[in-house]
Amino acid sequence: MSKRIAGPEIERLIQLLAKVPGLGPRSARRAALQLIKKKEQLLSPLAAAMAEAVDAVRICSNCGNVDTCDPCTVCTDPRRDGATIIVVEDVADLWALERAGAMNARYHVLGGTLSPLDGIGPDELNIKALIDRVAGGGVSELILAVNATVEGQTTAHYITDQLSGLEVRVTRLAHGVPVGGELDYLDEGTLSAALKSRTAF
Amino acid sequence: MSKRIAGPEIERLIQLLAKVPGLGPRSARRAALQLIKKKEQLLSPLAAAMAEAVDAVRICSNCGNVDTCDPCTVCTDPRRDGATIIVVEDVADLWALERAGAMNARYHVLGGTLSPLDGIGPDELNIKALIDRVAGGGVSELILAVNATVEGQTTAHYITDQLSGLEVRVTRLAHGVPVGGELDYLDEGTLSAALKSRTAF
Ligand SMILES: [Zn+2]
Ligand SMILES: [Zn+2]
Repeated sequence: MSKRIAGPEIERLIQLLAKVPGLGPRSARRAALQLIKKKEQLLSPLAAAMAEAVDAVRICSNCGNVDTCDPCTVCTDPRRDGATIIVVEDVADLWALERAGAMNARYHVLGGTLSPLDGIGPDELNIKALIDRVAGGGVSELILAVNATVEGQTTAHYITDQLSGLEVRVTRLAHGVPVGGELDYLDEGTLSAALKSRTAF
Repeated sequence: MSKRIAGPEIERLIQLLAKVPGLGPRSARRAALQLIKKKEQLLSPLAAAMAEAVDAVRICSNCGNVDTCDPCTVCTDPRRDGATIIVVEDVADLWALERAGAMNARYHVLGGTLSPLDGIGPDELNIKALIDRVAGGGVSELILAVNATVEGQTTAHYITDQLSGLEVRVTRLAHGVPVGGELDYLDEGTLSAALKSRTAF
């Protein structure tokens, strides 16, 4: 705001809300106002929930997942198949795969991809702990669910190299046409891959 | 999430974030994760800012604005022209007009529009206080900056009726083509109004 028209507590709330991913400066003002209007139902509980999250959040020392216990809920879930580890770049990918609900495996969160230009080498990622998990035994398959980007694939290759000599099957996600996707919006690489991996109808 | 994959504090944070205007369930998960990653820089300060806002926020007893003092910053600003009151439906409209920075007036926030079907009559809105402000003297112009909707115009007419007998000029915002607006996207009513109110070039 050009002129100050509200007290510093409100201005500060707007400034911080503007930094929340998904909200910009304009949405932040609208959000602040709605939160203030719903002070008892929303603003107050949200403030409390955030304060509790600040205290409760832990990084799982086993897999790198974010949770409120360490080891995390996924690592300690006895109904999961511990022989399969899905390797993801980010906790967001773990959550996305869990929403898909296709596997009942465990995970390993790398915390990013190798990117020498940004100074991100193997030591900056959660890779050594992954190799140690596999070397510890009991893991039969590692699914490399990294992004289909140059960095993702470079990271996948690096991990595969580090695993040489260990008895584990290394797989990756299939390429293909997204469900509901329209062919003429897809790039040639995806279409070629979908053709190559075609299945019986 | 179908299966529980994170502790209750994180689930609750996601649930509450999903209720923030501008964030949906999907954005709420992404936002929660980013907030957790930036725990010290963002989540913790935001929790504190929200808690402070809960304590500090007041509704201005003079104009209905939201602020941290009562009377509000706008009502007590000595550089503003107290003879002009801009009447708005919502605090968001007050903020929008202040960003435009076109007037240095005071405001009156109605808190909505008359809507008999929703059970919103004059007593549910901040109208009596507005009439009292004008009756108290010192107000020469009332700008009815309500939305150009049926409810907004009904409310404007009701207020004008209530002001009969009081010495005050009542005006409303001009209709016309939005700055940067393309003619062929505008409705006929706006175009007619813009033609009728045409000005010398
Ligand atoms: Zn874990
Ligand atoms: Zn005020």
